[in-house]
Amino acid sequence: MFAPFQYQELIERALQEDLGTGDVSSAIFPKTATAHAKIYAKQQGIVCGVEIGERIFKTIDGELEIKKCLDDGSTVEPGTVILEIFGSVRSILMGERTVLNFIQHLSGIASLAHQAVEEIEGLPVRITDTRKTLPGLRMLQKYAVRVGGGQNHRFGLYDGVMLKDNHIAAAGGLIQAVQAARSEVGHMVKIEVECESLSQVNEAIAAGADVIMLDNMDIGAMREAVGIIDKRAVVEASGGLSKGSLRAVAETGVDVISLGSLTHSVKALDFSLDLGDIKKATLERWQKGEL
Amino acid sequence: MFAPFQYQELIERALQEDLGTGDVSSAIFPKTATAHAKIYAKQQGIVCGVEIGERIFKTIDGELEIKKCLDDGSTVEPGTVILEIFGSVRSILMGERTVLNFIQHLSGIASLAHQAVEEIEGLPVRITDTRKTLPGLRMLQKYAVRVGGGQNHRFGLYDGVMLKDNHIAAAGGLIQAVQAARSEVGHMVKIEVECESLSQVNEAIAAGADVIMLDNMDIGAMREAVGIIDKRAVVEASGGLSKGSLRAVAETGVDVISLGSLTHSVKALDFSLDLGDIKKATLERWQKGEL
Amino acid sequence: MFAPFQYQELIERALQEDLGTGDVSSAIFPKTATAHAKIYAKQQGIVCGVEIGERIFKTIDGELEIKKCLDDGSTVEPGTVILEIFGSVRSILMGERTVLNFIQHLSGIASLAHQAVEEIEGLPVRITDTRKTLPGLRMLQKYAVRVGGGQNHRFGLYDGVMLKDNHIAAAGGLIQAVQAARSEVGHMVKIEVECESLSQVNEAIAAGADVIMLDNMDIGAMREAVGIIDKRAVVEASGGLSKGSLRAVAETGVDVISLGSLTHSVKALDFSLDLGDIKKATLERWQKGEL
Amino acid sequence: MFAPFQYQELIERALQEDLGTGDVSSAIFPKTATAHAKIYAKQQGIVCGVEIGERIFKTIDGELEIKKCLDDGSTVEPGTVILEIFGSVRSILMGERTVLNFIQHLSGIASLAHQAVEEIEGLPVRITDTRKTLPGLRMLQKYAVRVGGGQNHRFGLYDGVMLKDNHIAAAGGLIQAVQAARSEVGHMVKIEVECESLSQVNEAIAAGADVIMLDNMDIGAMREAVGIIDKRAVVEASGGLSKGSLRAVAETGVDVISLGSLTHSVKALDFSLDLGDIKKATLERWQKGEL
Amino acid sequence: MFAPFQYQELIERALQEDLGTGDVSSAIFPKTATAHAKIYAKQQGIVCGVEIGERIFKTIDGELEIKKCLDDGSTVEPGTVILEIFGSVRSILMGERTVLNFIQHLSGIASLAHQAVEEIEGLPVRITDTRKTLPGLRMLQKYAVRVGGGQNHRFGLYDGVMLKDNHIAAAGGLIQAVQAARSEVGHMVKIEVECESLSQVNEAIAAGADVIMLDNMDIGAMREAVGIIDKRAVVEASGGLSKGSLRAVAETGVDVISLGSLTHSVKALDFSLDLGDIKKATLERWQKGEL
Amino acid sequence: MFAPFQYQELIERALQEDLGTGDVSSAIFPKTATAHAKIYAKQQGIVCGVEIGERIFKTIDGELEIKKCLDDGSTVEPGTVILEIFGSVRSILMGERTVLNFIQHLSGIASLAHQAVEEIEGLPVRITDTRKTLPGLRMLQKYAVRVGGGQNHRFGLYDGVMLKDNHIAAAGGLIQAVQAARSEVGHMVKIEVECESLSQVNEAIAAGADVIMLDNMDIGAMREAVGIIDKRAVVEASGGLSKGSLRAVAETGVDVISLGSLTHSVKALDFSLDLGDIKKATLERWQKGEL
Repeated sequence: MFAPFQYQELIERALQEDLGTGDVSSAIFPKTATAHAKIYAKQQGIVCGVEIGERIFKTIDGELEIKKCLDDGSTVEPGTVILEIFGSVRSILMGERTVLNFIQHLSGIASLAHQAVEEIEGLPVRITDTRKTLPGLRMLQKYAVRVGGGQNHRFGLYDGVMLKDNHIAAAGGLIQAVQAARSEVGHMVKIEVECESLSQVNEAIAAGADVIMLDNMDIGAMREAVGIIDKRAVVEASGGLSKGSLRAVAETGVDVISLGSLTHSVKALDFSLDLGDIKKATLERWQKGEL
Repeated sequence: MFAPFQYQELIERALQEDLGTGDVSSAIFPKTATAHAKIYAKQQGIVCGVEIGERIFKTIDGELEIKKCLDDGSTVEPGTVILEIFGSVRSILMGERTVLNFIQHLSGIASLAHQAVEEIEGLPVRITDTRKTLPGLRMLQKYAVRVGGGQNHRFGLYDGVMLKDNHIAAAGGLIQAVQAARSEVGHMVKIEVECESLSQVNEAIAAGADVIMLDNMDIGAMREAVGIIDKRAVVEASGGLSKGSLRAVAETGVDVISLGSLTHSVKALDFSLDLGDIKKATLERWQKGEL
Repeated sequence: MFAPFQYQELIERALQEDLGTGDVSSAIFPKTATAHAKIYAKQQGIVCGVEIGERIFKTIDGELEIKKCLDDGSTVEPGTVILEIFGSVRSILMGERTVLNFIQHLSGIASLAHQAVEEIEGLPVRITDTRKTLPGLRMLQKYAVRVGGGQNHRFGLYDGVMLKDNHIAAAGGLIQAVQAARSEVGHMVKIEVECESLSQVNEAIAAGADVIMLDNMDIGAMREAVGIIDKRAVVEASGGLSKGSLRAVAETGVDVISLGSLTHSVKALDFSLDLGDIKKATLERWQKGEL
Repeated sequence: MFAPFQYQELIERALQEDLGTGDVSSAIFPKTATAHAKIYAKQQGIVCGVEIGERIFKTIDGELEIKKCLDDGSTVEPGTVILEIFGSVRSILMGERTVLNFIQHLSGIASLAHQAVEEIEGLPVRITDTRKTLPGLRMLQKYAVRVGGGQNHRFGLYDGVMLKDNHIAAAGGLIQAVQAARSEVGHMVKIEVECESLSQVNEAIAAGADVIMLDNMDIGAMREAVGIIDKRAVVEASGGLSKGSLRAVAETGVDVISLGSLTHSVKALDFSLDLGDIKKATLERWQKGEL
Repeated sequence: MFAPFQYQELIERALQEDLGTGDVSSAIFPKTATAHAKIYAKQQGIVCGVEIGERIFKTIDGELEIKKCLDDGSTVEPGTVILEIFGSVRSILMGERTVLNFIQHLSGIASLAHQAVEEIEGLPVRITDTRKTLPGLRMLQKYAVRVGGGQNHRFGLYDGVMLKDNHIAAAGGLIQAVQAARSEVGHMVKIEVECESLSQVNEAIAAGADVIMLDNMDIGAMREAVGIIDKRAVVEASGGLSKGSLRAVAETGVDVISLGSLTHSVKALDFSLDLGDIKKATLERWQKGEL
Repeated sequence: MFAPFQYQELIERALQEDLGTGDVSSAIFPKTATAHAKIYAKQQGIVCGVEIGERIFKTIDGELEIKKCLDDGSTVEPGTVILEIFGSVRSILMGERTVLNFIQHLSGIASLAHQAVEEIEGLPVRITDTRKTLPGLRMLQKYAVRVGGGQNHRFGLYDGVMLKDNHIAAAGGLIQAVQAARSEVGHMVKIEVECESLSQVNEAIAAGADVIMLDNMDIGAMREAVGIIDKRAVVEASGGLSKGSLRAVAETGVDVISLGSLTHSVKALDFSLDLGDIKKATLERWQKGEL
């Protein structure tokens, strides 16, 4: 896990985008007006970003009181409340959109990952993400994948070797490429080879690759590759996989299915903030749990 | 327009996410190996991010040579080349994923905006975005909307007043709310009122609102509202509008249709980088245009 | 309004300028020595920066106790105490100069704005600032203008169109310029045109400008322009206006008078910090209110 | 001297304040339109910020061509051109206000410092600034003081000891305070003592202070203090000194006169940007020097 | 490899530490004075930081001309010149200390790593670093280890699992700990177990650990452990290893020896900058190679 | 002294280096598991960094409870506990390495400085550091020197003049160089001259240098120089001084001995973190002091 200070800068950038030189609509509210607000789901899915939401409100106004109603990874239904906030109505409205933008995106990812995981339920296969993420959001997007039940592929170019056709051509052959990589990188780094054919799979095994990616192979080829590899390397299926085909892929015996769409084409999960009756929202009632 | 230095920090953050402590696969390539690469579309759509892509490569390695093949806003077909790069193969591979992540997302937005604009072609209506953007990406996402032919709604809480039910309740009525806002904000700021009924539309007109948003109204109510408003304010339709229904909405006579989905649920437009034959890629051939 | 985290970076930069590698004079004080200090005005004016001052002290030392004696916008007389501080004498002296530098500058602006507003008292005219601000201080300078009773013109090139002679020449005429701007910018953006003659005023009205700036016109021309415009646009007077002439300008019927001098040529309002008797400053006495 | 990269961040912050999400007026200009612009003085004074201005334009658009017409510290008269710019008219207008804001403020300081220096011409006295600077601008403000012919007092709490009444009280006496400071700080740090009376001056000499500040003394007391000190320490006059009284102070024999007003109450020196005829501004003419 | 922009921020921080508000000694030099300088070694060792040195000078002054005389990883002897610089003498002196501070530290690391690698020459063992690095310098310190011929252990807590006694206790046993880790982390992440006894080594093998660290074992135990493991995992020796004992450790058959001292207790390698005769340093002579 | 916020950025950078995208080993621990940990010395020396350690843990997790067992500057023996921590075991392990890296380095410096100070005990000589520090760590390294009983030389090029042979050559002589510097820099800045011969020492005295550095002189020359200078300037010995020779140098009568090795070649002082029995670590026991 990461520490919250690690996404604080992103929170402040996102807030800065929305607040700019200040909220010009809030002058309508008396400075001292307080409110009670609830953030709730409008769709079924997996929530992600509850603690981030709390931090955003706290960044705007340290005196806001926040109640987290459930943890990241929980299933929400239309109407499920995830966060309650009490305090300055100006502060709540300053945070509303930014909080929703984070939660809707991350919950969209978690829900998508969850659907993929459900599709292969019972099979010994992992669903992972890729490096096809949105600029500046990789750490949180990959967190959302884990929240949805998936796992993470490498985070970047630095924490795992992936050898593709270009690397292989440059090294003068697949085996040479793996050996060259092995001699250069540290002993904690795994080496994956992208294979487009069964003959490449054979070479990758011979070279001692840790992970073999079957790139855009059809179901039959995948099954054959799994047989060839025979547990001597982790087997990853990748490329053009869509919802609905995952189970068939999983049944070939691969260990990992990686999906770029989990992070590059996210459909937001809908949430909304409901501001209760401002006149009734007093600190006393909040503390008594009457709001 | 903004200046390129304004997104330089985002570029560096995105690269940092991918490069981390360095690309561990590139050791396979001799330090001096050069290559010629092309980035091309794999789907039909509107391209956005060509200049950003150039900047990313230049950030990694100032000695890369870049050819921009077309401008943002151009239509691409499968196979259309948008950028050519010549130089260190290590540098090209370090930038590949980050460049594609930017271009695929922004082109996804531009293409979506373009489809919406085409749907209402010939009608005097504008398609705009909302504040439902992804954290840290608002300026570029809204740029992509313009590239696709749409226009921008307010950028944040600071450059336009939007009065919703909460504001109205707090102020003791819609007219009071508009008046309060008018007296507080500068003379360059427009005031929009979110209306859920025709009676609210009437009040908003009486209050002198600059823009009236028809929130989740059906086609009939919209048409009626347009008649009531009768050019005395800009009319915006918003809420739950999906592709296919835009033309009907536009035909009611509204001036603006705002779509959150343009930025909160983006489907990436597919692009790929093709690294040519490393052995043939010499500076001489690049300069002669033979690659 | 903005949120305090938005000026935290500026506070830290300003403190860094003064503290550098550390206060070399404070070694004189025992590390545990505490003091009680008061910040008070030495001139009559409008105070601005009280909460910022509190934040600066808290940034240096989270254990300092602070009492805000009045709110931004209050009138101060020589001797009026605005902040009381109790805690480490080293911490108080580390913050002294930076706090005073902020408060003196912002109060200078608020006081100047207030004088301008008083000069036109009773007339339906607004005093606003311009973009002639000091580097890095725009948000706070414009806040100080509001604190002093003024209002804000656009904050930058991004939140309002201003068409000057160059734009008009480039577009082939004033009317064409306004139309071009109208078709390009979002529906929430107002368009202002700078007019140097009555014929330009007529054109601007014909073009449908939202705001018309009368640039460096004399009183007679202004009055005439107001008559021509006849409420069809907001009228702004600008250029070379000095204290003493504001009322005459206001009486011409313009809606807005914008003053660059509010922010580009500020005279600091004098404040000072008084450190009470160190020997008497105990936490107990502070809590009892005896200091 | 400092290096230009040290103020690059301030330039970008200042530009960001003005550009925000982009200049909405510039759409009027064709993207390829070029112009030739001149920045010239509208008042007599000392210019400061020419190279900073060049950097600002280059930050916006690296392809702008810039001609610096004179160096910082030069005298300008109404009409004196200090910078010429050729290139994209959009880029020039994006930088105009920010460049002027820097140059007007810094030139205001340099001109004020220059006036003070002229007032004491021929006397062996230095004019210096204080720590009463504007947040975030200290390094540049103090540079402008040097450009105007003044010199710099300490830059902050870190590069010189200043012992005031509070320090003296805490240490149990002036002599003890100086000795305590001497034993704590490095051998490269000078120690200054603020004296309000001649008896304190005597003590400061006895304690071996490097610099003695005569705080708010009248002319007679200053002269007497200078006699007492008799070259055994540097003598600084400070406090409430206004233009017109400087020569009398200087004639008392003090070595240094420090003026807070040089930086805390700056009157901008007026400059303007003139955009030539857009139609005539071609690169060819620029290169031939015909613009 | 990383890209140079990734250490640019560190360069600017280091320069800022030294330059602060500007070099006060350089006023002695006329602004236009140029010089020719050489940076040369004063000790035998492996150089690291040549390109970083070039970037530092370029950051200060883009017009400095730099000649890199050899690459990182080269052996230097007393007197070997590594960098030549021509240009403003002020700029050269502003960069001198910062460049030397980087190069001396990194070359110290590279030289130390090189000595360790030489000690085990001919044996199939790798020398690696640890996470015992200096704050803010990890990426460059680990680069210097590679330059010296060593390799990198994991870069942080994020790119490799290391299970110690605490993890094992918490999981209820070594095997359980490895299994728990395996099920949680991505398929690209290796799992290392710290073993203090041969029975733990047996367990680690049973659990399928990828890497087994022999923590503070004596030579005999190491040899025995290597026999037990029998190529089923990578074997790492760690803890209290000093120069002189490395060969004996290597001869036990371990695969990796990790050394914290490579980065936590670095002895600088001595370099110096020599400024040639200022009067003779002309651009013409530089270009002709006569300096 | 500096304020803690001034090293917060360095703490976050150092943590970011180690945490990256998150600790992958900690998944072994239940999220709610708490522990009690102690950081203790493994060597005799002077501790430095206790408060920094506390801040690092608080940055990761604001709910960790910390007990500082002694202050910076205290002597530690093997086993001396300096910090106790109670709270989330995940958070403690996330901070462990970074805290140790800071404390080990700073305590190494403090211990080295302390040894040097002890070597000259009883003599009126100061031990100081130089500008030979590690990139990004200067402020803290120089703090550690003070903690060890040393003092600081200038912090950079900005807070003291140092004239070397190059400056002297450029100015046309030593006396001219000092005079030129005196006329340029502020009255709070001291001027030091590096002398390599007794004739230069004589010149430096004639020129009125504040500090004279005897560069690489032998003991006899130093003693002679001290006699020549005769208290008219501070005398600093520098260059190639090693432990064991300091007392002899100090006995020559110099005022200051500056040592680059204090900061450029630091040997870490060994500390370790011990995690107690996780099962016994409850909040109740912590509060009762039973852990």
